[in-house]
Amino acid sequence: MKLHHIGIVVKNIESAIPHYCETFELVTISEIFHDSIQKVSVQFLGNLNSPLLELIQPDSSDSTVSNFLSKGGGLYHLCFEVEDLEVTLRKARECGGIIVKGPDPATAFEHRTIAFVVFRDLGLIEYLQK
Amino acid sequence: MKLHHIGIVVKNIESAIPHYCETFELVTISEIFHDSIQKVSVQFLGNLNSPLLELIQPDSSDSTVSNFLSKGGGLYHLCFEVEDLEVTLRKARECGGIIVKGPDPATAFEHRTIAFVVFRDLGLIEYLQK
Repeated sequence: MKLHHIGIVVKNIESAIPHYCETFELVTISEIFHDSIQKVSVQFLGNLNSPLLELIQPDSSDSTVSNFLSKGGGLYHLCFEVEDLEVTLRKARECGGIIVKGPDPATAFEHRTIAFVVFRDLGLIEYLQK
Repeated sequence: MKLHHIGIVVKNIESAIPHYCETFELVTISEIFHDSIQKVSVQFLGNLNSPLLELIQPDSSDSTVSNFLSKGGGLYHLCFEVEDLEVTLRKARECGGIIVKGPDPATAFEHRTIAFVVFRDLGLIEYLQK
């Protein structure tokens, strides 16, 4: 598997984009996408020789990331791109992971299939079918 | 700059190593290193097509990461490898970062020069001189 992106929860994506681009020498590689299921706005930034940063802003107070933002936001999750999502999820369960969402055909990101798994110590992991 | 590694704070590095290797298809690429300044044990894991995972365990209750572990541990910091650390730190300050440590010749990691910067929203960032 390969690290595809790192999710960062921000309060205001419009102001966060230029801030992150300037601070970490990044460029935007997508438009801002509004995910109506997760109730978030997301923007991918690239230039780190492989993994992307994904800025995530809750669009409403019942968004999946609102609670995390209320505790300060910041580093939220890692996303790994995998060869076989079903095999990966079976392995994740064997390793103590709890599947909290998916596998769903994603509406959020290139229409690819994703799943979210929580590990007790590490927290939230996203898996993305290659 | 390039994402060099992602720091993850764990309670027990000895048990975390095989767990992370199995879960994320990683291999150890170093011995466990005891950093007497930060009072942590660290282990680098690789296989993600570039960035490493760094497992970090506090060695004592007054370690720099003990407070973070007491809140649950997990994703702790991002480390970027940079061409010119002095220039990067000047830029980081201009972007609102507060330098909390360094630049110091590191004893922890290949004897390279590092610095730690805190950004209000993102949290802790490590910069590593290329």
